[in-house]
Amino acid sequence: MKIGFIGLGTMGAPMARRLLQAGHEVTVHNRTRSREEPLAALGAARAGDPRSCAVGREVVFTMVSDTPDLEAVVSGDAGAAHGLEPGAVLVDMSTVSPAATRRLAAELTGRGIAMLDAPVSGGSEGAENGTLSIMVGGDADALERVRPLLEVLGKTITHIGPSGAGQVAKAVNQVVIAGTYAAVAEGMALAQRSGVDTDALVRALSGGAAGSWILANRAGNMLRGDYPLGFRTRLHRKDLGIALSEARDLGVSMPVAAYVEQVETGLVGRGYGDEDVSNVARVVREMAGLDD
Amino acid sequence: MKIGFIGLGTMGAPMARRLLQAGHEVTVHNRTRSREEPLAALGAARAGDPRSCAVGREVVFTMVSDTPDLEAVVSGDAGAAHGLEPGAVLVDMSTVSPAATRRLAAELTGRGIAMLDAPVSGGSEGAENGTLSIMVGGDADALERVRPLLEVLGKTITHIGPSGAGQVAKAVNQVVIAGTYAAVAEGMALAQRSGVDTDALVRALSGGAAGSWILANRAGNMLRGDYPLGFRTRLHRKDLGIALSEARDLGVSMPVAAYVEQVETGLVGRGYGDEDVSNVARVVREMAGLDD
Repeated sequence: MKIGFIGLGTMGAPMARRLLQAGHEVTVHNRTRSREEPLAALGAARAGDPRSCAVGREVVFTMVSDTPDLEAVVSGDAGAAHGLEPGAVLVDMSTVSPAATRRLAAELTGRGIAMLDAPVSGGSEGAENGTLSIMVGGDADALERVRPLLEVLGKTITHIGPSGAGQVAKAVNQVVIAGTYAAVAEGMALAQRSGVDTDALVRALSGGAAGSWILANRAGNMLRGDYPLGFRTRLHRKDLGIALSEARDLGVSMPVAAYVEQVETGLVGRGYGDEDVSNVARVVREMAGLDD
Repeated sequence: MKIGFIGLGTMGAPMARRLLQAGHEVTVHNRTRSREEPLAALGAARAGDPRSCAVGREVVFTMVSDTPDLEAVVSGDAGAAHGLEPGAVLVDMSTVSPAATRRLAAELTGRGIAMLDAPVSGGSEGAENGTLSIMVGGDADALERVRPLLEVLGKTITHIGPSGAGQVAKAVNQVVIAGTYAAVAEGMALAQRSGVDTDALVRALSGGAAGSWILANRAGNMLRGDYPLGFRTRLHRKDLGIALSEARDLGVSMPVAAYVEQVETGLVGRGYGDEDVSNVARVVREMAGLDD
């Protein structure tokens, strides 16, 4: 298929590469143009702006950092919306505001262009290996048309509902992990200050009601007070901000998520934003005097 | 072996039954004496008080509701401590204070009696089927002596450390599940108010970083606003109280666990203490107007 790919960061670059290597005709664009070069070396065409990256393309992907970036590359002056033709599909894989997604989708639908929101979880490793989990909102027929492309990128593709529903699922994901990180961090601090065998304790808890991906994969970071990536705290805080904003619009009160967002705000402010988000435990450990 | 079993509640009765059916010589005692009758019908001897339940026994189990109950049945006027003989082992499977456990263990050790703290997770179903997870604190040699008995009761038996360490592990378990329940409840409220397909959303999240036993097994309760047992809220609140008290003694700050304890306090006060602890979602749903 004729594909446009806009946004070649840590996630976007390997995703564009996978589409190219699957045999598709891919045109790429990135704000910092030099990031297009490795893709061009593999055979991608380059476009000077999002609009020209979209002209003549059947499907255009976007993978950018935040809501204002998406709005700029889609409906800005040289945005993809001005290049997309009726019948094309825009697949936004960024994590952005569900409300902004619904607005952009309505704008494009009026001109015969389908927009899917398709945020992912699974990190840069998942992007490299095509094992992302993709949560999709928007028209089911449009999803079926692009499904073969999404299958190049992810191992589970779930249609969650209408436009914005994929972003809601991603927001819920970030809310659930926020509280779980805090819960595991508090438990580990109590365990460590009690002087018990924390390895045995984590093993005993893992198979029961306290079991989680975070306990299995991040309790070790927390006990060592060392937070290698993983997923960056500043990105998780951005995502929690989106979730809290959506929740505020809907009148949903999320005190635990709000608390964790505050903890992460402090961490980012202190320069720990590029550590793994398991560093929520840094603050819990400090409060417990574990690093004195 | 010659066994005494004190405390025949929802957990204790099936545990005593399993030991009896495994061929051991079991004497039982319960404060409400009528609860001894079903065990007596299966061949157990009955004792009129904890002391006489311990006389001549190699191993005495206790399974009672809270710290003061344990102190009464062990070191009260007619407590088991007055009947236990040097070389015997007291195995306390209740969930009680780690600090009180260490005090009782020290008192017994001085008289040549080993005490193990061996609280469990897995609920009444685990007690019936012998599939409990047992977290053990105390002397490793004493554990080896009673291990064949614990294997009748549980499928995983983990030595966590010295006296009190089993209770610390159980406290950590309850802290971790507290925050995880709150996190999943907040996420589900956001999902439901957003109007997305919540089944698809839970499926999409379950395999990733948001995955947990609670998401897999209790998100459904939360989405339906219906909280069948499971594990009683009033018991979880009691256990969180133990964890928060231990944490206070150690100077460990656990704001999320403390918040959940407050939510549960309100639920118990309103008569919801015998619902499953997933009813933390009741308060989150109310705050989100989901039950208006």
